[in-house]
Amino acid sequence: MKFGVVVFPSKNLQDFANSYRKRYDPHYDLITPHLTLLNAFDATEEDASEFAERLQQIADRTNPFTLKTSKISSFHPVNNVIYLKIEPVKELISLHAEIHTEFSEFKSEYAFVPHITIGQKLSNDEHSDVFGALRMTKIDHEETIDRFHLLYQLDNGSWTVFETFRLGKE
Amino acid sequence: MKFGVVVFPSKNLQDFANSYRKRYDPHYDLITPHLTLLNAFDATEEDASEFAERLQQIADRTNPFTLKTSKISSFHPVNNVIYLKIEPVKELISLHAEIHTEFSEFKSEYAFVPHITIGQKLSNDEHSDVFGALRMTKIDHEETIDRFHLLYQLDNGSWTVFETFRLGKE
Repeated sequence: MKFGVVVFPSKNLQDFANSYRKRYDPHYDLITPHLTLLNAFDATEEDASEFAERLQQIADRTNPFTLKTSKISSFHPVNNVIYLKIEPVKELISLHAEIHTEFSEFKSEYAFVPHITIGQKLSNDEHSDVFGALRMTKIDHEETIDRFHLLYQLDNGSWTVFETFRLGKE
Repeated sequence: MKFGVVVFPSKNLQDFANSYRKRYDPHYDLITPHLTLLNAFDATEEDASEFAERLQQIADRTNPFTLKTSKISSFHPVNNVIYLKIEPVKELISLHAEIHTEFSEFKSEYAFVPHITIGQKLSNDEHSDVFGALRMTKIDHEETIDRFHLLYQLDNGSWTVFETFRLGKE
């Protein structure tokens, strides 16, 4: 089965992201808006508890951080993903790096560009229309992130939270 | 905003429940299969951390329990909800009672019948067809539950996990 590690932002920011995802993201029904820390990877259900222990240790030594977003960007031409760009603050970069060191067997081949996807699987024409309209949107949002989550995927593609990790709690 | 407290069972049981929910439950896209411990209630986002503290204290003094299901039942004629009947073991009843004592202001008017909904909002005819076909289904499933979750609802009706509570952890 597939696992993943994500941050769910506040209700406000999720509602804002969903206002776009509803139209532009086919994953809208499968997971609520999120910032991915570790991409989907394969493991067995029995592995979950051990993963959780390793993630808790990372969480214990990471401080809460500020999630700040001010604009909408796109990964085009690599792929037609439109996203809220998240400022790469030191704590977030280091949290991502620690998780990737600990789970180095599941490392992604991409550089880390912190983001919350609001549109994907768009055709080139759709992408160019939608991103053309959204690229000038100014966003002024800042919030504190004090937790992240280990998820697993069901057969229908939807994601369930296995466990929450509070940052710097202990 | 709305909060709720639920148990998510194992992937296997969720996949099994979803095979029915896909056809019979309009909430299929809003939340993965779950056993409700505290029905949706209204509170502010600022209340979430305090709720989490109170739930953690309950979790600390509750032991993991066995979730066992052997049949499909219905709440008809009260309402046309079809569900996996969950055996009301002592630990589950007491966990539910503790949560309802602690959150007595949000108490439900129903007696606690532990269940995982697989169909709802069915017309009387649909209910009678579907439940007629499912009522004889024998299920033989048992698993250990060692956690529950505090969720909140987004504007589009979908639910996000705020925090996980491990039973008897500390």
